[in-house]
Amino acid sequence: MVGAGQLARMTHQAAIDYDVELSVLASSADDPAVLSGATFTIGDVDVFADLAGAAAMGDVVTFDHELVPAHHIRLLEQGGHVVRPSGGALRFAQDKLYARRSVAAFDRPAVAVPAFAPASSAEDVAAFAERHGWPVVLKARGGGYDGRGVHVLAHPEDARRLLGGGGGTEAAWVVEEHLDLAAELAVLVARRPSGEMATYPPVGTLQVDGMCRELTMPARLPAAVADEAVRLAESVVERIDAHGVCAVELFVTADGRLLLNELALRPHNSGHATIEASVTSQFHQHLRAVLDWPLGPTTLYSPAATVNLVGGPGRMDLARRLPRALDVPGAHVHLYAKSPRPGRKIGHVTALADTLDDALDAARAAASLLTGE
Amino acid sequence: MVGAGQLARMTHQAAIDYDVELSVLASSADDPAVLSGATFTIGDVDVFADLAGAAAMGDVVTFDHELVPAHHIRLLEQGGHVVRPSGGALRFAQDKLYARRSVAAFDRPAVAVPAFAPASSAEDVAAFAERHGWPVVLKARGGGYDGRGVHVLAHPEDARRLLGGGGGTEAAWVVEEHLDLAAELAVLVARRPSGEMATYPPVGTLQVDGMCRELTMPARLPAAVADEAVRLAESVVERIDAHGVCAVELFVTADGRLLLNELALRPHNSGHATIEASVTSQFHQHLRAVLDWPLGPTTLYSPAATVNLVGGPGRMDLARRLPRALDVPGAHVHLYAKSPRPGRKIGHVTALADTLDDALDAARAAASLLTGE
Repeated sequence: MVGAGQLARMTHQAAIDYDVELSVLASSADDPAVLSGATFTIGDVDVFADLAGAAAMGDVVTFDHELVPAHHIRLLEQGGHVVRPSGGALRFAQDKLYARRSVAAFDRPAVAVPAFAPASSAEDVAAFAERHGWPVVLKARGGGYDGRGVHVLAHPEDARRLLGGGGGTEAAWVVEEHLDLAAELAVLVARRPSGEMATYPPVGTLQVDGMCRELTMPARLPAAVADEAVRLAESVVERIDAHGVCAVELFVTADGRLLLNELALRPHNSGHATIEASVTSQFHQHLRAVLDWPLGPTTLYSPAATVNLVGGPGRMDLARRLPRALDVPGAHVHLYAKSPRPGRKIGHVTALADTLDDALDAARAAASLLTGE
Repeated sequence: MVGAGQLARMTHQAAIDYDVELSVLASSADDPAVLSGATFTIGDVDVFADLAGAAAMGDVVTFDHELVPAHHIRLLEQGGHVVRPSGGALRFAQDKLYARRSVAAFDRPAVAVPAFAPASSAEDVAAFAERHGWPVVLKARGGGYDGRGVHVLAHPEDARRLLGGGGGTEAAWVVEEHLDLAAELAVLVARRPSGEMATYPPVGTLQVDGMCRELTMPARLPAAVADEAVRLAESVVERIDAHGVCAVELFVTADGRLLLNELALRPHNSGHATIEASVTSQFHQHLRAVLDWPLGPTTLYSPAATVNLVGGPGRMDLARRLPRALDVPGAHVHLYAKSPRPGRKIGHVTALADTLDDALDAARAAASLLTGE
């Protein structure tokens, strides 16, 4: 697994059940998956030799994040490594312009995406806004995560402040219409090389500052919308020929349309409640999918809510606070062994209950005891 | 944690959630918990320096098995180490004669135990059998597990064959009446130093050759018997002042009596279904109990069954067989990374279902695909 963050850490926990040795390519010996005891090499994903060295340790190469040079992934594939998801599929998570253009061209079924255009200058942004109105959303074409690289621009001046004068020759940005949203969803789909797919019920995500803070599973949606979301997600995952777990993030607009937001080709924050609430956790499922093993049932045992723990400006002593949070009955706390820098996801709490409201109350109560917010 | 077997392996998986570093005292680098990535030292539990070295790595010393010299545990405690469970409580799992005598003396409430006597010779056994009838059960006073050290003797000759002529000066055995059993149960009780206890619903255990092979959670029992089993288990755990998870194994006789069988002062095979079926797994619970943190709810999400995977005479290629077993919907497979020697527990499968019968069917199907039996 390329990367050794919390997704690799939780994949390692699942791998122990199957006696599968997860080797991770870590950036340091303090990475969450290294601290959880995964086999590791330390290296830089941008250095091909480091990536190739890590790839040589396993039968299948997979990913904890998609910030890996596409060229290096192609080289691994050309060198005979089994890479799942493939570089071709990963590009849908690495290059937002490529993803928008490709998905907009899908038909049978067509997949709706927000109006978009490539942008390399403030003028490009302004030209787009003249057609679609302000505000617009400007996204870095690659490299963003957790809201980094995404900006809502209300005026031409915002675009100039961000992009400066002039412009590059290549579009480094995608500018998109700003939608009036009723909800944001994620649909986790696992797909294995045999073609078998297994899809979890849609998850409702609440974003704060572009970062996912709270999740409800299943999402609060009319059944027809949930069904449509599942169909849409499955059709996208098939079209891009993804292997492994894939998170298909969707917008539900105020006027009831369903549009594709982004794709993540790996286990995903939106699926953390599957650890306790689903027959098969997304981490077990990802292993099964990339190893081309039979996928597990995605049935929910119970409604569930997850609240992310995010570093704040002050000091946080999670170890000291943990016992208090465990006093909330049924709060499942997952700490990632990351130092709590502001805006950084350092853990999550999941709670199961008969209703989403009760689950959310319990998860919020434990989370706030942990972070002191 | 002293010992690095499958219980330590699964405790390590749970410890990752809490960002607790589990250090294990392993006998080799191939031990299950070492292979899962727990921090480890290699040593011999019978060598005090090895035990003390491992103890120095943690804030609290706890156990994956009870085959640790009682004298060494006392020395650790005298040296100021926090040992949970204490050596005094552990003795109830280490010395069957001490346990029988102590528990037989409990009152308010009294706890029934089988008729028993110390035995150091075939004559002692025969004398006991004259009062209680053949067959009798002969148990090594210490050191037994998974049926090792337990013998059912039908005739005086069986006793002579096993014990030879003459006898020691000290009783190395406990001889007990052979009960006509309706069922065997285990009740898992967690208790923390604050005195808080949390008890799981009784588990039904099916023994084959003295080794637990199948478990149903909850046990198939009239509610009144289940309640009595819980009360009995809790009273024993309080009386012996145990800390951590404690498995109280009980006999239900054909004539409806409930008697104490054995105690294990650690997470236990009978509790493996708690990983998936309970709000709090026994491994999370053990950590919480020995760290004196609030205990978690022991509510079941669903009826569940566990089937142990036991090594047989032939070769077993679990890795090759695993994908086939995962084809059984909802089978949760746990492999321990142990070489499959005959009679050795090498993994388990848990399945959840609306009925125990369905859960058992699924767990059996997956287990038999794994072991080829």
